[in-house]
Amino acid sequence: MERNINELVAQMTLEEKAGLCSGADFWHLKGVERLGIPGVMVSDGPHGLRKQDQEADHLGINDSIKAVCFPAACATAASFDEALLERMGRALGEECRAEDVSVLLGPAVNIKRSPLCGRNFEYFSEDPYLAGKLAAAQVRGVQSWDVGTSVKHYAANNQEYRRMTCSSDMSERTLREIYLAPFETIVKEARPWTLMCSYNKINGVFASENPHTLTEILRDEWGFDGYVMSDWGAVNDRVKGLAAGLELEMPSSNGVRDAQIVAAVRGGTLEEAVLDKAVARILNIVFRYADVQHPEAKFDRAAHHALAAELEKECAVLLQNKGALPLARAAKIAYIGGFAEKPRYQGGGSSHINASAVTSALDAARVNGTDVVYAEGFPADRDETDEAKFAAAVEAARAADAAIIFAGLPDSFESEGYDRSHMRLPECQDRLIARVAAVQPNTVVVLHNGSPVECPWAESVNAVLEMYLGGQGVGAAADALLYGDANPSGRLPETFPYQLEDNPSHLNFPGDGKNVEYAEGVFVGYRYYDKKKMAVRWPFGHGLSYTTFEYSNVRVSADVLNDGGTVTVYADIKNTGDRAGREVVQLYVADRTGTAGRPEKELKGFAKVALEPGETKTVELSVDARSLSWYSEALGGWYAAPGRYELLVGHSSRDIRGAAAVEFRTEKLLPFHVDENTTVGELLADPRTASSVRQMARQFMDTIAPAAEDSADAAKEAVSDEMARQMMDNMPLRGLRSFGAFPEGALERMIADLNAKMAQ
Amino acid sequence: MERNINELVAQMTLEEKAGLCSGADFWHLKGVERLGIPGVMVSDGPHGLRKQDQEADHLGINDSIKAVCFPAACATAASFDEALLERMGRALGEECRAEDVSVLLGPAVNIKRSPLCGRNFEYFSEDPYLAGKLAAAQVRGVQSWDVGTSVKHYAANNQEYRRMTCSSDMSERTLREIYLAPFETIVKEARPWTLMCSYNKINGVFASENPHTLTEILRDEWGFDGYVMSDWGAVNDRVKGLAAGLELEMPSSNGVRDAQIVAAVRGGTLEEAVLDKAVARILNIVFRYADVQHPEAKFDRAAHHALAAELEKECAVLLQNKGALPLARAAKIAYIGGFAEKPRYQGGGSSHINASAVTSALDAARVNGTDVVYAEGFPADRDETDEAKFAAAVEAARAADAAIIFAGLPDSFESEGYDRSHMRLPECQDRLIARVAAVQPNTVVVLHNGSPVECPWAESVNAVLEMYLGGQGVGAAADALLYGDANPSGRLPETFPYQLEDNPSHLNFPGDGKNVEYAEGVFVGYRYYDKKKMAVRWPFGHGLSYTTFEYSNVRVSADVLNDGGTVTVYADIKNTGDRAGREVVQLYVADRTGTAGRPEKELKGFAKVALEPGETKTVELSVDARSLSWYSEALGGWYAAPGRYELLVGHSSRDIRGAAAVEFRTEKLLPFHVDENTTVGELLADPRTASSVRQMARQFMDTIAPAAEDSADAAKEAVSDEMARQMMDNMPLRGLRSFGAFPEGALERMIADLNAKMAQ
Repeated sequence: MERNINELVAQMTLEEKAGLCSGADFWHLKGVERLGIPGVMVSDGPHGLRKQDQEADHLGINDSIKAVCFPAACATAASFDEALLERMGRALGEECRAEDVSVLLGPAVNIKRSPLCGRNFEYFSEDPYLAGKLAAAQVRGVQSWDVGTSVKHYAANNQEYRRMTCSSDMSERTLREIYLAPFETIVKEARPWTLMCSYNKINGVFASENPHTLTEILRDEWGFDGYVMSDWGAVNDRVKGLAAGLELEMPSSNGVRDAQIVAAVRGGTLEEAVLDKAVARILNIVFRYADVQHPEAKFDRAAHHALAAELEKECAVLLQNKGALPLARAAKIAYIGGFAEKPRYQGGGSSHINASAVTSALDAARVNGTDVVYAEGFPADRDETDEAKFAAAVEAARAADAAIIFAGLPDSFESEGYDRSHMRLPECQDRLIARVAAVQPNTVVVLHNGSPVECPWAESVNAVLEMYLGGQGVGAAADALLYGDANPSGRLPETFPYQLEDNPSHLNFPGDGKNVEYAEGVFVGYRYYDKKKMAVRWPFGHGLSYTTFEYSNVRVSADVLNDGGTVTVYADIKNTGDRAGREVVQLYVADRTGTAGRPEKELKGFAKVALEPGETKTVELSVDARSLSWYSEALGGWYAAPGRYELLVGHSSRDIRGAAAVEFRTEKLLPFHVDENTTVGELLADPRTASSVRQMARQFMDTIAPAAEDSADAAKEAVSDEMARQMMDNMPLRGLRSFGAFPEGALERMIADLNAKMAQ
Repeated sequence: MERNINELVAQMTLEEKAGLCSGADFWHLKGVERLGIPGVMVSDGPHGLRKQDQEADHLGINDSIKAVCFPAACATAASFDEALLERMGRALGEECRAEDVSVLLGPAVNIKRSPLCGRNFEYFSEDPYLAGKLAAAQVRGVQSWDVGTSVKHYAANNQEYRRMTCSSDMSERTLREIYLAPFETIVKEARPWTLMCSYNKINGVFASENPHTLTEILRDEWGFDGYVMSDWGAVNDRVKGLAAGLELEMPSSNGVRDAQIVAAVRGGTLEEAVLDKAVARILNIVFRYADVQHPEAKFDRAAHHALAAELEKECAVLLQNKGALPLARAAKIAYIGGFAEKPRYQGGGSSHINASAVTSALDAARVNGTDVVYAEGFPADRDETDEAKFAAAVEAARAADAAIIFAGLPDSFESEGYDRSHMRLPECQDRLIARVAAVQPNTVVVLHNGSPVECPWAESVNAVLEMYLGGQGVGAAADALLYGDANPSGRLPETFPYQLEDNPSHLNFPGDGKNVEYAEGVFVGYRYYDKKKMAVRWPFGHGLSYTTFEYSNVRVSADVLNDGGTVTVYADIKNTGDRAGREVVQLYVADRTGTAGRPEKELKGFAKVALEPGETKTVELSVDARSLSWYSEALGGWYAAPGRYELLVGHSSRDIRGAAAVEFRTEKLLPFHVDENTTVGELLADPRTASSVRQMARQFMDTIAPAAEDSADAAKEAVSDEMARQMMDNMPLRGLRSFGAFPEGALERMIADLNAKMAQ
């Protein structure tokens, strides 16, 4: 249906237009009946539909309709599988259509800066490329049903502490390369219908009224054509927000903000055209939903429950396995830990699903007729040591062929609304794991958590299986993986450091409540651990399988990458084991041009490939100029220096199996303005000025060389030579005056000439 | 002699006054003969007199007169001994008087931010307290002869790379607590006659024209009454510099700057009163020297040579000793490494002394009749592997009772003018040390270096003795220490990390040439390693002895420290070994008030105590409010929260032997301005507002509590309660509006009331 949105806007009164810019209630937009504008509904996601059907409460946290809880983003990110995310997105989109929900609030793609962020379980990764690619796939899936997504929280909202007032302070480069990059990928590749702005400030300006992020970057640079809604309660100054590019405030302001907008337009402090544009953007999306019907859509909870378990099998990460896994169905297994019975499969807060059904590992084992002895040992919901339960669990473990400890973070340890205060499991769990491991060599730990935990017992247990918060089918998935009915293929979307203090944000998290300095800059996650050459418990990209893979023949389609072109990297991957399995092939780019301040390597491609035993497939991944680039503040854009880049192909960020190199060619040059404080070294290093100053540099060296030549022995002379060379390199042009290098006015003329040449 | 400086200034012409603000040549100030103003001389230090007696060359690096090279600051800092620094200062002051030098250029107290800084050997420490206290002692010593010092390089000059143009960018807090703190201590406690400004910019403004550091802080806050001279060539804009507080430019500008100053005064862009003040400050110091005679002063090179060796014995640090040391004179010892014959005892650049004599370890051993076999193994001046020499050295080591490898950094690895590119010794040295250690269990490594090096062989050798750059008596000192004629008592004034990448500045050193971000903030040196719970090779404050010390009875003079008062910490130290020795008792303060962003502990006192075998002494160290304080940018001053502070007494930063605590009481409060974005949590936490908002907070909890009470099970309820509590804590006042907490206008009135109350 073709609509003339502008005509519709023209028919609206000022009050109707102002009204459209905030919700009717907690979950609905306002409609305008006389003009046929429906009051469509939005509902929480991101990994299930949280549709509240009762009267909305003050906080919107009362029970919602029964729905299917899919694996949270912490888990789906570990799939390293775009197709999987798209599939899950399609399921969610269909549910929304069936329930008449026009926009699903998600996915959430904030970068995992610190393992302590309470909401990490809803987020994808410490890596912006991975987060962007996977979330884009989810958006495509949901929107394939003509249902919108609201990609959140835009932007730089990486902690819960003082999230409504704290300013996330960082360089523009850090903002672009790390914190905005996932949003950029999604906007450009998946065209999400809406974005949700975050609560926090970015470099001192509220995300809800930030023209730099909401308009200059999002619309002018990236070409976003949907609307931006506020996180619930994120609006500070509504009129400022509207002018900056925040179209929709949620939830309702009970008319207060509507009146402010009307007054601003009447008082001349807000152009009506700005309001018109906002309303048009909202209506455009409202009708993108309302003008399409999908009567075939149904909400099949049983089918989607099975799907949730299916997906989770691809998400779980086998972190360690000294041979205990997979278990034999015939063996006698002790199940220990409250999570065996009550798995933690989702986090608390706005994403909390009223799950239609939950399968525990014990349920699944019993269904499969496995010989399981269950000893609770410790509860799933709190940190409580009960010596009798401990003793029973240890005894059960000793008497069995293997012991599986179902561990994880209790709900109260990890939730929206507050950050974790440490990175440990409850003490009772660490204690019991150590005791079980002491009596049972085949001890397996199954983890249920939304973010890394310290694993002081890792060396003493046999295997560790990370389920993350795996959705309501988590128990079925764990069962299949533990007994080898499925082969683990998840990979860590984040580093597991040994201890909290290892984390790059540790010195500056969560700040003083007013500001949080992102002082580690772009060195987030593996970018930090690599640069600092730090040992980690398990690296980014790590994950084991029950089969093995061999990499060979890593090669490139061309040795030269021209700006504007692409180069394809190929690698042959062979399944050298005796089971079918899936390998995640990861491509990292390493800058070898000598540019300062770059990470050792950055993920720029990945592919998940299924291989039968003995089978070989060739994986293709491609890179372009952007894959090599960093964000130059001087340029105000992305830049890669010409020169050599290595393309590293491997199984994880710390397990590179092959490499190729490309020579990047570009005409692009960083801006260079010469003044009296430009150093001789800078001039000699730039192709635009090198030839002009070479003669001058020689004169300078001749002037100071005699001092060096005085020297009697060769070693002393070498020191003097090096000092002279470095002195020249570091010397600003103003400093050359005293060496008689310039007659009166000559320096000024030379500077003017150099700048004029550069401006050509 | 009483002089009326202002009257003298009044008699000077504008040209004479402008002329006085820059040097006459490389080393002299201008005189004014008709007014009896002498053209006094200044000369390089800091650890010896580098007086150039020939015609000055372009760079001032030709040979100077024969002088005594004392241990460099890297070594003297390791003495942890104020008396030693004062003694060395007195010797230097006497030399200056004897040679008619009015100001000695030093000490240099820049903080060792990175081990790579080429000039670290001239600097004291990674800790500002230690650097300040020791340098103040040196200043007192020099100035006891009515000779000035020039404390340098003021400020934040912590690298050589692009030192003339790069901006050191950091928070005001970091600047004050770490980089300015040593200067503050020295200015306040030792009243140096002059300071030397550094080349670099500080937060974008050249140190040579920075009113914040040169005037607001240095003079207005600290009460400095001398003059500031530029580092040689550090002037960018002379007129700006004069206005900012740079009195003297060095060296001569050949009249160019004099003319600029005259023109600025004539043109009205510089008040003549500013120039007059600068001239008065310079003259005041010129006559402080010229009006006093010290005919008794002599430059006794032989006596000072002996003194240099004497001092170095107190500076060397015994880093490791599994029992090989001390050696027996009667044993057969292999001396290996070129440094045995040609010790590196000073660094390159402006501090380079034309040493009157140098004692090598081989010289000293021969004088003492020790049975020494010398095999060069590797050269002292370059990285060169010679297999024949290696083999001979290994053979000599095998055949001896013990092997001492004299290792270190060649001159070319470490100098003023450029930074090190890595933290390793020359490869030939690491290689030979490993081979010798493989055949000789009593392998001892003696290091000659100005800054930490990676020691990959540390576990495989028996002992390591750090001589630093120990001055011209270094060989005699090493000999005495190795054979037990002296007992090592030096302590590390800096951390030895395992590898370069461990260093806190690693992600941001040396910046991009334009700016260097001090992103690690106050977490420099042990403040970082402690906070990050990192293992280090040898910690700050570490150093062994041939005897042992026992700490007991750590106690305080009072449990309460009132603002304005002091508390004394006592500890009983006993020499429990069989040799006389000296222990450095270190006092660290740990903030236990819950204030965010503070180091785990900070050095706030130290004392070196000499003990005979079996002897016990009580050491007293005192703390005041400043010992507990951090620099609050909101307050614009030093602040310590009221509450509990621990006083940790120990042998090193990682070997705390006892602790006491004080309760700090103060009326001082940080500024607190309430607005709509002030959170309920902030209001509840501040004593000035807590009572006013408690009722409101209760109402809010009542409003959202029902949601929590709905819940059936206790654990879920606990989560909801925690979420609600945190939500309230993080909620800005504006957010309460929607919960009906305020009738129209009530919030605004409450905010006004709270702010009014605070202003009272």
